[in-house]
Amino acid sequence: MKLPVIENILNANDKIAQENRALLDRAKIFAVNVMASPGAGKTSVILQTAQRLPPQLCPGVIEGDLASRLDADAVAARGIPVVQINTGGGCHLDAPMLRAGLAQLPLAELDLLFIENVGNLVCPANFALGAHLALVVASVPEGHDKPYKYPGMFAAADAVLLNKFDLQRVFDFDVEFFKRGLRMVNPHAPLFCVSCKTGAGMAEWRAWLLEKQNAFARQE
Amino acid sequence: MKLPVIENILNANDKIAQENRALLDRAKIFAVNVMASPGAGKTSVILQTAQRLPPQLCPGVIEGDLASRLDADAVAARGIPVVQINTGGGCHLDAPMLRAGLAQLPLAELDLLFIENVGNLVCPANFALGAHLALVVASVPEGHDKPYKYPGMFAAADAVLLNKFDLQRVFDFDVEFFKRGLRMVNPHAPLFCVSCKTGAGMAEWRAWLLEKQNAFARQE
Repeated sequence: MKLPVIENILNANDKIAQENRALLDRAKIFAVNVMASPGAGKTSVILQTAQRLPPQLCPGVIEGDLASRLDADAVAARGIPVVQINTGGGCHLDAPMLRAGLAQLPLAELDLLFIENVGNLVCPANFALGAHLALVVASVPEGHDKPYKYPGMFAAADAVLLNKFDLQRVFDFDVEFFKRGLRMVNPHAPLFCVSCKTGAGMAEWRAWLLEKQNAFARQE
Repeated sequence: MKLPVIENILNANDKIAQENRALLDRAKIFAVNVMASPGAGKTSVILQTAQRLPPQLCPGVIEGDLASRLDADAVAARGIPVVQINTGGGCHLDAPMLRAGLAQLPLAELDLLFIENVGNLVCPANFALGAHLALVVASVPEGHDKPYKYPGMFAAADAVLLNKFDLQRVFDFDVEFFKRGLRMVNPHAPLFCVSCKTGAGMAEWRAWLLEKQNAFARQE
């Protein structure tokens, strides 16, 4: 007797995430899901990365927040196409929200999309959006114990930026302890120590991101 | 014809939260639900407050984290009764978790209980535990826009501590902008600007907390 093979049954969110990914692939847009605690510097990372892109690469941004359009205004002030999504209290972006956001962007013009998730080091990791890369932004003032306390988020990262690194000494931040915690849950994601304020470390992160974007653009 | 009055039907969590409250009241323990972003300084606030209590008041602590027992170890090192709750990925404490934690504490010895919630500026505000006071800890490095972006959490606060205030200038933190955002969603909760590092502002917060605890102890 043959046992039936149970196929992976996608839930509604994952199904729409797959459709988002297909749409992004067709539009040749490399999408980065940016996740972090409140105030770690997601918007600053996006703006500082966008202004370092080669001129032929056009960025777009989707801003996720429970309320307000402060971040979208900051992005729009730089002349970058942006959509603000207000979750109305929801603790994460989901795939239907991203789909609605994509419908508002000039996709034909874009090469790179930064999706700023709701500030939350837990829930966003559990909801696929359809992005190509999961970027986790940690920051020095939050303390070096975060990978131990929020393992799910750090396990989900394809890359980790440790922001506000200019304040490492002010906060007695132990980078080796942070790294050990990160490696316990995520052996491979590269760690970039950066400061959006001084620009330190941004060149290495930029080079790595462009390599990924390049590989994506070539394979399409 | 008389219309039937629909009574407030409590969900399972709220019902257990009421039972927790009754248990705390019987034990004459004033309980504070401490909520904040990851790394805002919840544990430091608890330790710095505990060491400023009058000698006749005995504190206890319940530590909520997705994983690890780092915070509970730090509290235990000060000789304070503590229970660590690991949510196993859950983004908030709930009333059944608090009930389980209370069962592990020497309630007859305690006067004040600090419940450190999971670091998350969204979800914990939506789950009653049974505490008498909701304390929200914000911190200067997170930025002055947080009440605008996370209105639900700041609306739920009975008091707000703005921690790491010694770094106000380093981060160009606009206190008036923060206050305006707070007042938009919460007209009455007192705001205390403090630094757990230098101790600045802790005396005012301590005095306010002891007044609340005193009123509670007298009415029992």
